[in-house]
Amino acid sequence: MSTTYGDNRERVIGIAAELFARNSYHGTGVAEICTAVGLGRGALYHYIGNKEALLYEISKTQVDRMNDQAEELLRAGRPAEELLREMARQLLRNIASHRSEWAVFFREYTALTGEKRDKVVAARERYEGYWRQVLDRGVDERVLRPTPRLLVKGILGMLNYTYLWFEPGGPVSPDELADEFLDALLDGVRLKG
Amino acid sequence: MSTTYGDNRERVIGIAAELFARNSYHGTGVAEICTAVGLGRGALYHYIGNKEALLYEISKTQVDRMNDQAEELLRAGRPAEELLREMARQLLRNIASHRSEWAVFFREYTALTGEKRDKVVAARERYEGYWRQVLDRGVDERVLRPTPRLLVKGILGMLNYTYLWFEPGGPVSPDELADEFLDALLDGVRLKG
Repeated sequence: MSTTYGDNRERVIGIAAELFARNSYHGTGVAEICTAVGLGRGALYHYIGNKEALLYEISKTQVDRMNDQAEELLRAGRPAEELLREMARQLLRNIASHRSEWAVFFREYTALTGEKRDKVVAARERYEGYWRQVLDRGVDERVLRPTPRLLVKGILGMLNYTYLWFEPGGPVSPDELADEFLDALLDGVRLKG
Repeated sequence: MSTTYGDNRERVIGIAAELFARNSYHGTGVAEICTAVGLGRGALYHYIGNKEALLYEISKTQVDRMNDQAEELLRAGRPAEELLREMARQLLRNIASHRSEWAVFFREYTALTGEKRDKVVAARERYEGYWRQVLDRGVDERVLRPTPRLLVKGILGMLNYTYLWFEPGGPVSPDELADEFLDALLDGVRLKG
């Protein structure tokens, strides 16, 4: 795969994500995408395929990246607290730099059908599983207390939801925000005696 | 306003929310809504107005309800911890029983324009403000420690995000889930010495 092919592909995905984020998946036509990326229908098809394939790429690319990063961290065998903090930072950094993709993913992935939808859901579940592994590891290390199974979804909600409001370049960086959230989660907001 | 008018209105909003949740706002036509609710365009217009007015009602009704409930709680002058727990329960109960409305709100409110959009955003900010008030009250009561300003958005992310995955009638009730999340948030997940 030549660099030009890969670069063009990434560019098309990025522009389509912005269009879908702005005007919705159903509200964006293929003609509009072609105009925005400066390609004809044939060339667009060459780089990505149809509109649903574009939505699939937008929805899956960043989740795959988060899974890759989580696997690398988990392999490195660091203590659970460090892993939690680093995974939160990685996710908030990624959301901050790919807000359109995450907005499209959260709003529109239900428009995916068949195998494409199954793969995106599976990738999400894999990611959630890594968070659960880290919480379990923390319990084994006697650093964390056992917590209800659904708490993972609460933690991910806290982090994922930033796609709606986080302002990159604002007074708080993604890393700082991740630490603020993790401080609250690890030690609680209750005033200690 | 007669009961029939109010009932019909509520029914139209509920059905439209399901259609928008399933096929997206842009992907749902007025003709389709008319068929689903069994009304002609004239009657639909009588109950709600145009399609954007429907999206507005879907997006705003439950947020208004949450604001009303929060105001009532705050007026009752209960301790901050009780308020936090009760507000979380109220929100999760509402999301569990109005998942389509919340899905449409989170996915589609950006399709609202002008004054309608401003009003929905203002209602959301008011609700966030009530949560901040309760956190501040907890600090005044010397029950909570001072926390970063953005933590409110993290807490709401934790709770709001349930619209994506919570299964009403499943093994965990909305109240139980709210308590699980609040236990983690108040006391942290770290194992105490």
